[in-house]
Amino acid sequence: MENSMQPSRRQLLGLIGKAGGAAAMYQAMTALGHAAETQFDGPPVLSGAKPGASVVVLGAGLAGMVAAYELEKAGYQVKVLEFQDRPGGRNYTLRGGDTFTESDGTVQKVQFAPGNYINPGPWRIPHHHNCLLHYCRQFGVALEPFIQLNHNGFIHSSEAFDGKPQRYKAVATDFRGHTSELLAKAANAKALDGSVSAEDKEKLLEALRHWGVLDDNMAYTSSVAVSAQRGYDRPPGGGVGGAPSPSQIAKLGDVLDPQVWTAMSFYFNYVMQTTMFQPVGGMDMIGKAFAKQVGKLITYNAKVTKVAQNGKGVTVSYRDVPSGRMNSVSADWCVCTIPLSIISQVEMQVGPKLAAAMKAVPYAGQLKMGLEFKRRFWEEDDNIYGGHSFTDQPIAQLSYPNDRFFSSGPAVLLGAFARDAGAFELTGMTPQERIEAALAQGEIFHPQYRKEFLNGVSVPWSRVPWILGCTSRWSEENREAHYQNLVAIDGRVVLAGEHASYYGGWMEGSLLSGLDAITRIHQRTQAA
Amino acid sequence: MENSMQPSRRQLLGLIGKAGGAAAMYQAMTALGHAAETQFDGPPVLSGAKPGASVVVLGAGLAGMVAAYELEKAGYQVKVLEFQDRPGGRNYTLRGGDTFTESDGTVQKVQFAPGNYINPGPWRIPHHHNCLLHYCRQFGVALEPFIQLNHNGFIHSSEAFDGKPQRYKAVATDFRGHTSELLAKAANAKALDGSVSAEDKEKLLEALRHWGVLDDNMAYTSSVAVSAQRGYDRPPGGGVGGAPSPSQIAKLGDVLDPQVWTAMSFYFNYVMQTTMFQPVGGMDMIGKAFAKQVGKLITYNAKVTKVAQNGKGVTVSYRDVPSGRMNSVSADWCVCTIPLSIISQVEMQVGPKLAAAMKAVPYAGQLKMGLEFKRRFWEEDDNIYGGHSFTDQPIAQLSYPNDRFFSSGPAVLLGAFARDAGAFELTGMTPQERIEAALAQGEIFHPQYRKEFLNGVSVPWSRVPWILGCTSRWSEENREAHYQNLVAIDGRVVLAGEHASYYGGWMEGSLLSGLDAITRIHQRTQAA
Repeated sequence: MENSMQPSRRQLLGLIGKAGGAAAMYQAMTALGHAAETQFDGPPVLSGAKPGASVVVLGAGLAGMVAAYELEKAGYQVKVLEFQDRPGGRNYTLRGGDTFTESDGTVQKVQFAPGNYINPGPWRIPHHHNCLLHYCRQFGVALEPFIQLNHNGFIHSSEAFDGKPQRYKAVATDFRGHTSELLAKAANAKALDGSVSAEDKEKLLEALRHWGVLDDNMAYTSSVAVSAQRGYDRPPGGGVGGAPSPSQIAKLGDVLDPQVWTAMSFYFNYVMQTTMFQPVGGMDMIGKAFAKQVGKLITYNAKVTKVAQNGKGVTVSYRDVPSGRMNSVSADWCVCTIPLSIISQVEMQVGPKLAAAMKAVPYAGQLKMGLEFKRRFWEEDDNIYGGHSFTDQPIAQLSYPNDRFFSSGPAVLLGAFARDAGAFELTGMTPQERIEAALAQGEIFHPQYRKEFLNGVSVPWSRVPWILGCTSRWSEENREAHYQNLVAIDGRVVLAGEHASYYGGWMEGSLLSGLDAITRIHQRTQAA
Repeated sequence: MENSMQPSRRQLLGLIGKAGGAAAMYQAMTALGHAAETQFDGPPVLSGAKPGASVVVLGAGLAGMVAAYELEKAGYQVKVLEFQDRPGGRNYTLRGGDTFTESDGTVQKVQFAPGNYINPGPWRIPHHHNCLLHYCRQFGVALEPFIQLNHNGFIHSSEAFDGKPQRYKAVATDFRGHTSELLAKAANAKALDGSVSAEDKEKLLEALRHWGVLDDNMAYTSSVAVSAQRGYDRPPGGGVGGAPSPSQIAKLGDVLDPQVWTAMSFYFNYVMQTTMFQPVGGMDMIGKAFAKQVGKLITYNAKVTKVAQNGKGVTVSYRDVPSGRMNSVSADWCVCTIPLSIISQVEMQVGPKLAAAMKAVPYAGQLKMGLEFKRRFWEEDDNIYGGHSFTDQPIAQLSYPNDRFFSSGPAVLLGAFARDAGAFELTGMTPQERIEAALAQGEIFHPQYRKEFLNGVSVPWSRVPWILGCTSRWSEENREAHYQNLVAIDGRVVLAGEHASYYGGWMEGSLLSGLDAITRIHQRTQAA
């Protein structure tokens, strides 16, 4: 057996492994058909830091904390200034007893039962975000599956299916079935003969028949076989009444509704693909784990007012928010991770290219709501365990909790993840009005909504005082014009954060950006 | 807001809920667009059992135990005879220290580290198997997500992609892309004009463009946008080198390989759709939970040798296996859940229709293997957390463990789930040869296989002495000719089990069948 299937491949890899170590092995595996999943290949090796070399880090979000952690480990003198009274930035979790204050002073007090929470910022971790997973492993952050694709979630379009929510499994099956029938029809009418070989045409027809669950006439019709994908009118059972009965397929026009293919395409996205994870107990477990390592370096409640630099170093002025007292920190280098929406308003001695880049990038203003209900009716009544339901109403989606499935007692679902116009509309409301809107829009999926509702909280990111937005939104044009200027070291200052990455809005982008920034600073110190 | 979106619907449901209770509410929700998910609507209400009425149940698998549980609760005198020395039947888990003996006497001793296990029988629970979920809730069986669809699992076909494994995400994206391009081409060439309206054609083209990630010319080509679904050559990152680079799409001929659409269709199946679950610690937690309720009713090591009946009752003869002593139990009724592959060989006084039905149904002979490795290289090196990789080799698939993600130390994956010819080939080997075959075939996905391998166990179901097969396999013709005869009460005897259901091979089928059987027996006792 040793010599049967793939000996040369395996022997080759064995030799490479012995000779070149893990990196060479990984490269070889990639060449043999294993795709690259990440740019991360371990934390940076910053050896040979000069004694006394110092760095001031602005912002104790993930980008700032990973920079501080690796710099200090390498021997740098590190100080971190953070505006808030907690670490993590957008790595943030709201629980019962917490308060949330909007930029206009509106205060919400979260009333969730103990153990319940909502993650207003990042809330899911792709399986290929290796840098984030590396630190979760290293710091012992417990992760559990985040159910992303749930075939039993709902899709609602006001323009299709008479406005009635449909299960994802049903419309996805119908979409595949109808399009397969059309393509098979075209193939059989020789419409593809110029595009595909005779052999591929045969293979295509066979594929479509199975993939689209077409009948003997290559038509997509209601049947038990189709229902075994889209769901039954009466599902299979046991004993005398065990036989299932088929459900009725939807019309082509309905399944071509944008809500259908938007939902399907959403799940196809690399960053949205299964398997995904979340920290047990709330996303801020990650920020807290970092803070356990670097908390002693952080000065909280420090509002940066000015970043001055000369050829030798940086001086950062800041105000201690509670007392109003001004203070300053000087260091050889500055890693600034403050969101562009904030730092672009601070006096900063940087060159015109970086200054222009900092002002060029708009921020999206998503809004999230957490709604607490008396019980998990979505599980108990509707067989929905985690995942999402989508709607073209302003709330855009519901997302069901992925922790403590099957448990009794109050539970929190994400009652809105509004973007663009929907976010704008909801943000303009009072917290109580937002809840009313979320209930009115959400009960289209769940008639149990009003009866089971307990309380809720809304987080409109464009009104979050310390960021005034949710995530950077790079256009292709802006990337071309400004990205490299934004990330380039400007004298003694370098920017980092999700905005300084190609993973905008993802924790992985913050971390990779932070590591890249300090690696380049370290190289400068070595070259100097 | 109260009166805005769906007042009539909600008010209607409220009224129905008040007037008719949960069942009426459920019916009304179904009518409003919520599909039926299950035939289960709660455990049967068997009120008014006659004092002293008795039932003997044959087999302490799930069908037998649920029958015993509900019958005893209703006031029946219940006895259960079980051939094995443990409850659960195919609800079965192998752990370190367990031994497994094949029908030819071959013994394997499982060497897994503490906490590791393999479920040779059922191993995943669909979110809509409400009967099983009901008893898991009631008996406190802790469940955790079973990662079913993993976009990062591999697909391997010896006939395509030069025999190199591909990631699911890549080939699924390419399949959608290529077929979308072809359909768009046909639509633009007016080949569909007889089949779709002008409006639907416009919607179709828009859908295909997004769904198939087609370029401005409606062609499927390598690009960063396509790579954002199929995976990148160089994934996005942070800082100066953050820009991703696209991967190369596969050829149409390759993605039309049956392995591709077979894998995709697999995940579309209603019983295979997300969300799925597994018991924490092994599938036999369910059997053990039932046994905690009805264990006192079970006589273990009892090999049934004869089932005799007259107009008044049933007498079951059995041998106590360890002592060889014969014994018998008499009762008013008998619920027989012994697999057809076994009971069809036992002398049984039943009518010709049932006798014929019992002999008509063949059993499939799947084979599963559990392989223990030193570490979770599929997680650490390959970013695979749960889910499956498929191959056209005899092992058919690998499935990665869904418990204790990210943990260090030895872990067990399912190294083979062979069916049909593949199962036949592997079953014919010695346990050591099977392991060699599984390693040789599995390392096509994971070059780390040999280096990390510790030990393994194989369970060829056709050689499992107490069943000699894995699951009943009904053909449509057999269903037509024999199913109703198989489940009909024959004098004082009724059959139950997955074979007496339309959910063959699923625990849900066993349970629903068991409940249906006792409900009908109860009705007979009430009518008598």
